[in-house]
Amino acid sequence: MKPELRVGVAGLGTVGASMVRQLQKKSNAFAARCGRTVRVAAVSARTRGRDRGIDLADVTWFDDPAALAAAPDIDVFVELIGGDSGPAEDSVRAALAAGKHVVTANKALLARHGVELARLAEDNGVSLSFEAAVAGGIPIVKTMRESMAGNDVSRVYGILNGTCNYILTRMEQDGLDFAACLAEAQRVGYAEADPTFDIEGNDTAHKLAILTSLAFGCEIDVDAIYLEGIASITSADIQAADELGYRIKLLGVAQRTDTGIEQRVHPTMVPKTSAIARIDGVLNAVAIDADVVGEVVLAGPGAGGNATASAVLADVADIARDIRVPVLGQPVAGLAPYKAAGMRMHEGGYYIRLAVYDRPGAFAEIARIMAVESISLESIMQRDRAGAKAGEAGAPQPVTLITYETTEAAVKRALATISAQNVIAGTPQMIRIEKLA
Amino acid sequence: MKPELRVGVAGLGTVGASMVRQLQKKSNAFAARCGRTVRVAAVSARTRGRDRGIDLADVTWFDDPAALAAAPDIDVFVELIGGDSGPAEDSVRAALAAGKHVVTANKALLARHGVELARLAEDNGVSLSFEAAVAGGIPIVKTMRESMAGNDVSRVYGILNGTCNYILTRMEQDGLDFAACLAEAQRVGYAEADPTFDIEGNDTAHKLAILTSLAFGCEIDVDAIYLEGIASITSADIQAADELGYRIKLLGVAQRTDTGIEQRVHPTMVPKTSAIARIDGVLNAVAIDADVVGEVVLAGPGAGGNATASAVLADVADIARDIRVPVLGQPVAGLAPYKAAGMRMHEGGYYIRLAVYDRPGAFAEIARIMAVESISLESIMQRDRAGAKAGEAGAPQPVTLITYETTEAAVKRALATISAQNVIAGTPQMIRIEKLA
Repeated sequence: MKPELRVGVAGLGTVGASMVRQLQKKSNAFAARCGRTVRVAAVSARTRGRDRGIDLADVTWFDDPAALAAAPDIDVFVELIGGDSGPAEDSVRAALAAGKHVVTANKALLARHGVELARLAEDNGVSLSFEAAVAGGIPIVKTMRESMAGNDVSRVYGILNGTCNYILTRMEQDGLDFAACLAEAQRVGYAEADPTFDIEGNDTAHKLAILTSLAFGCEIDVDAIYLEGIASITSADIQAADELGYRIKLLGVAQRTDTGIEQRVHPTMVPKTSAIARIDGVLNAVAIDADVVGEVVLAGPGAGGNATASAVLADVADIARDIRVPVLGQPVAGLAPYKAAGMRMHEGGYYIRLAVYDRPGAFAEIARIMAVESISLESIMQRDRAGAKAGEAGAPQPVTLITYETTEAAVKRALATISAQNVIAGTPQMIRIEKLA
Repeated sequence: MKPELRVGVAGLGTVGASMVRQLQKKSNAFAARCGRTVRVAAVSARTRGRDRGIDLADVTWFDDPAALAAAPDIDVFVELIGGDSGPAEDSVRAALAAGKHVVTANKALLARHGVELARLAEDNGVSLSFEAAVAGGIPIVKTMRESMAGNDVSRVYGILNGTCNYILTRMEQDGLDFAACLAEAQRVGYAEADPTFDIEGNDTAHKLAILTSLAFGCEIDVDAIYLEGIASITSADIQAADELGYRIKLLGVAQRTDTGIEQRVHPTMVPKTSAIARIDGVLNAVAIDADVVGEVVLAGPGAGGNATASAVLADVADIARDIRVPVLGQPVAGLAPYKAAGMRMHEGGYYIRLAVYDRPGAFAEIARIMAVESISLESIMQRDRAGAKAGEAGAPQPVTLITYETTEAAVKRALATISAQNVIAGTPQMIRIEKLA
């Protein structure tokens, strides 16, 4: 048997505590699977005294995670502190520089510094593993890095944020508006007191940036991601989507095009019959379109202490088994620079909802502007606004349009022109439709 | 860079040809991912001359796969011959004995000889990889062997045979009967001329036997699997399932119980809202219930030359990257003997369809017999038989029962007693209901 593997864990929140608990409880089974004993040798956290339901009697305590990272007592450093700088970054760098393998659940850190840290790991001949950083308990990183080795990926997309998916699911199932569902998500602990980071799509973007690199063998560029959150989605959109055979999901999509690689995070209409449409509540799912295998979809819990700990434990097991894979699927020197496809070049169908003034010629004018931009309409849905007073002549009527495939630039131009005429009230709503099998 | 990895491929059907084509086409990208060149050095097949769309000019030809398996020209032997004995078995044994890594898509071989071959691989210090043997392009073997390392699995289940799922999907979507859908499956190439092996569940059983070993760390016992095919499923069952909120799928299920491990393959009623219910056509899906992660579901193409080749290529990449994992997730010496839970001990809900004679007391007698066996009924659905002549007194009427959770033994006893009375026509239909999240 190989010598014992000594693990140091920095950060003892729900993930860290769960991971330590499982390693202690299952030490024999885990050793049988890994071919060696794996022991939590040292930990670090902000508060020492707290009862976390784990036995730290024989575990060395460090106040400073960076000191733990470089300590001779450990072979693997598990970073569960969080944040793209500060103690998380410092300790990960210290561990890699000291020749320790690193396991992290930190998507922000990787989205910002992934390529640099991958190089540092390579230079020091150690692993940098991050299964837990993308889609929690779903083994998407391993699938991308290892199972897709014979494939060229054309698109990877997914529901990567449980908070947003919970809110959109509740809006659909209970007919509530965004604010009510957000409040409910906060009440049950699925959304933070400040939910900005989730609902504006930043969390999804961090995960997508990592997936993009794994899918296309390119460098990570989180700042290049087109970002649109879910706060603008109304009950009217949810209802119209339902009537048109769609559901609305916040997707992260990375897609190879003729001009580069699209990276976009936005509310998306997906056909009800698609696998991704059926992922409800806080679940996550990731789909991979690839040339040899076709489409593979992985679904499961994207967050939570235990599910995330499961992914961390899988990474630790890989290290214990001496499984070494290039951090981003291939050596850093082989990564291509990220080449963005401009969002205005994006091609797809669009859902457009307008409040059209109820007077002669208004709709004709809209149709004319669409035609000028060569946008063909697949469907037009017009109905009396719920609650509109009978005989309220001239009041705006909701009109929903679905376009055939066109370009983002054409739609943006058309909507700008329409807004400049005196034919609609308020701002047009526009939601991209994702073409799915 | 590590030295070139030389691959020998035995069997050049659709999978073998696709795999060789991809390796030749993507040699640079594959080398970048694996850290070494991977080259098809030798092949073997039954017919030498045939045009397979691959370049065999610089590839050594072997008429005898066992000779290829032991040839000094190769480092990895890829077995795509098929069958649980004969050339497939002989050549895999020869390769392992000669110290070659083996990649195989052969579920029958593994279901029969998996433990023995795993021991042989261990003794010779080589890999035996079989991602392609279970659920084709879905990375379920890697997920079970590696990503679940920190988990105790309580149940693994899935749709593992595309032929059966295609037939059941067509029956549901088009309202056709079993025979018509089977004929259609044969016409489009989704079913063999002799479809027995698929529709009686044997193919599913082979895959399940392997999953059971990976899930529970036990030896493989394919003969212990309870087996029921889909030929008995009628349009009436499909329709009743639909009305009751279920769909009928052929599932393979392995589940830990208090008395041992259940392994069963049978038509199963699954709630329409479950992830597994939504897998249509020839797709496969596997769900894992585990203590730390919760439930993870993987879906994708379960068969086809390219999808299967994708899994073979992933195994070859692992070998090229020196990734070594115990064949069945842990060393053979650590595998527990398979301890079966008797099928009569199975607990669950049941769907029962009876043709009840339309005369006083018939239904009361059935209800009495159910009560004697302590079977509680969740629903009773009775309606005039479609096509029954009005006023045809005494003609049997279809009655559909859904039971609350009970035991297989109780249901079997109740149905035997009912059949012995003169209250029903024909044989009762019974379909198990799987409890799903």
